[in-house]
Amino acid sequence: MKTGFFKVKTREEVWGEFERFTLLKTEEISLGQALNRVLAEPIIAKEDLPSFTRSIVDGYAVRAQDTFGASESLPSLLEIVGEVGMGETVSFELSGGKAARIPTGGMLPAGADSVVMVEYTEELDQKSVAISRSVAPLENLIRPGDDFKAGQEVLQAGRRLRPQEIGLLAGLGQKKIIARARPRVAIISTGDEIVPIEKEPRPGELRDINSHSLAAMVENSGGEPLQLGLAPDQFSALREKCQEALDRAEICLISGGSSVGSRDLTLDVLASFEGSEILVHGVAISPGKPTILIKTGEKGFWGLPGHVASAMVVFQVLVRPFISYLRGEKLSLGEGRPIRAKLYRNVASKHGREDFIRVKIKEEDGDLIAEPIFGESALISTLVRADGLVRIDRHTEGLYAGETVEVIGI
Amino acid sequence: MKTGFFKVKTREEVWGEFERFTLLKTEEISLGQALNRVLAEPIIAKEDLPSFTRSIVDGYAVRAQDTFGASESLPSLLEIVGEVGMGETVSFELSGGKAARIPTGGMLPAGADSVVMVEYTEELDQKSVAISRSVAPLENLIRPGDDFKAGQEVLQAGRRLRPQEIGLLAGLGQKKIIARARPRVAIISTGDEIVPIEKEPRPGELRDINSHSLAAMVENSGGEPLQLGLAPDQFSALREKCQEALDRAEICLISGGSSVGSRDLTLDVLASFEGSEILVHGVAISPGKPTILIKTGEKGFWGLPGHVASAMVVFQVLVRPFISYLRGEKLSLGEGRPIRAKLYRNVASKHGREDFIRVKIKEEDGDLIAEPIFGESALISTLVRADGLVRIDRHTEGLYAGETVEVIGI
Repeated sequence: MKTGFFKVKTREEVWGEFERFTLLKTEEISLGQALNRVLAEPIIAKEDLPSFTRSIVDGYAVRAQDTFGASESLPSLLEIVGEVGMGETVSFELSGGKAARIPTGGMLPAGADSVVMVEYTEELDQKSVAISRSVAPLENLIRPGDDFKAGQEVLQAGRRLRPQEIGLLAGLGQKKIIARARPRVAIISTGDEIVPIEKEPRPGELRDINSHSLAAMVENSGGEPLQLGLAPDQFSALREKCQEALDRAEICLISGGSSVGSRDLTLDVLASFEGSEILVHGVAISPGKPTILIKTGEKGFWGLPGHVASAMVVFQVLVRPFISYLRGEKLSLGEGRPIRAKLYRNVASKHGREDFIRVKIKEEDGDLIAEPIFGESALISTLVRADGLVRIDRHTEGLYAGETVEVIGI
Repeated sequence: MKTGFFKVKTREEVWGEFERFTLLKTEEISLGQALNRVLAEPIIAKEDLPSFTRSIVDGYAVRAQDTFGASESLPSLLEIVGEVGMGETVSFELSGGKAARIPTGGMLPAGADSVVMVEYTEELDQKSVAISRSVAPLENLIRPGDDFKAGQEVLQAGRRLRPQEIGLLAGLGQKKIIARARPRVAIISTGDEIVPIEKEPRPGELRDINSHSLAAMVENSGGEPLQLGLAPDQFSALREKCQEALDRAEICLISGGSSVGSRDLTLDVLASFEGSEILVHGVAISPGKPTILIKTGEKGFWGLPGHVASAMVVFQVLVRPFISYLRGEKLSLGEGRPIRAKLYRNVASKHGREDFIRVKIKEEDGDLIAEPIFGESALISTLVRADGLVRIDRHTEGLYAGETVEVIGI
């Protein structure tokens, strides 16, 4: 293992290390599996969408100029020459002074250039209609390519597919797409005091929380969690679990080992894999300082703090962006935006360290209030009561009550 | 079918109609399936969490009074009487003047009431340690029940389970929970112009977008989509599909039929089921006015507009809250909060109608800007370009550029 000199890194420096990793492989998936997946290749429209001129109202297809000057007191009289059926390829053509009945979504006949809404018409008999309001050319129509034009890049690589993107792909007849694979994320809990949740803990023992909360976070981040269970604080047992993680997953989260001895063990085990490289050994955030990131081949091993709330904050602030990076995800400005709220009370912070304060959101006189939650990060209740995290910049020594803060979800 | 007099309802009135429906049935599920499910019964802690007094640092368990007055120049000298092992039930007891080595997470020996961090200690030999800083009673400890106490309601019925709730349940050894069933949501597209995405549309035909975008929205809302495919604008074919929906699902979404004739057909078909009751026939929102809600037994049939963007907006504003209601979900103030942004340009609106304007979020000089997207609601591109929706109150006749608006996600 290349070791070298370690210094605590900032969050931005940790994010910078992600670039040493190769993006996840690509795979072809069907549209039905595509929700929330990330496009690995752009989507180019092969045809105009829509592909023909459609009416967006129920009414009469006309030539606009035949309606100019029409009013209730002086309607234009047009001859009805046909009716457009839904889904029908229209075969007839309109000439001057003529009109055709057309439903919403119907194809505009050649010769027509606009549609008059049925509300402004009156059929005098089967063959003639009075138009009481004028329309401009192109009124009440959608034209070929109004959604997207043939040859246009409709979705960029890196786009996470929301329901509307799924709809667009359906509209283009795109039955399959090339997406980044979902990362498999192995999860290992360490610590001799931890027992599986099936077991009744003796005094001194605790049930394994991290395996379950981290697996849920992986799932919510678009990864595939693989719970590998518990490893005792012992070299060969932990190494065996890590080997399994290397074999089966792209990312591994090892949590626990909040005592110094246990932390050193995790480092020793990971160092024992050929070609391992320590990228991060300590991060200037709180909670989460003892976080480790090691690169073994193309696999990323994260050593997370053992305290339950710390492990979740580190996941949110570092591991989630790592997964996002590996998926090649390009976030739009509208995604995952923090909400703004007023801080309920003063919060102190240490210069040089970025703090993530758990807060509960309340509403008072129409204002959103972020109330800091106190309590040790070994307590899961601090996150159960929380709606989000307020970040305190490392150049700031605290925030004052009443200040506007940004709350990111957790 | 009971019909009676119909008037267009407000969004709040539509939400009010939900109370006529019975909540979804409950089912027992394992913890591994519980993420994002809604609790049907509260969770009561059967034991204290944690169940014993633990150290949250590496150091020495002591009696605080033995450290009072300790400083670097005048340390307290204590006798080391033992070492706490991780996960061990401690059998020895501390008396005055004694200390025991203890790791983070270790169980506090009886007699001790605090822990001194290792940084402020120095072992003089195997049997004695110098303490250079005093601690207060209870310092550096977590006590039984600090997370939750036995008998306490730790999670209320109606809570949607996030990763931290999953962690808490693991900590309590709760291997199974009682949740509301996921609603099965049948999806039917109508309209003679619509073809399945596998088919090449002829001029006048369009591929089915709504089945796919709505299925994705159902999935994102915690429901289970059942795509029943296309029904032509014909009574018996549509009735057969609706019968299948009644048999297999709790909710049915019928989209399409934006032309008047097609809308009437949907109503006629649903009216033909015994005991059907029209709850909503027109909503004072835009887009989405022609929305229908019919109750057949305990099943809810939604008639959604055919235009792709309208159908999605109605889903977000009405159907999603309906699913949430049936799941018995109690939203906390922190969930699904809109983000605030400044409106980019004036937007007109009609008095008496609630408008949902699609917007794109941009950033300018550190401010978030919501830029309205123009374009017909028949165009899916208007939603692909959008980051969210701005709601314009029905008592407002528009919003001015520069006003602060709230943007809800879509």
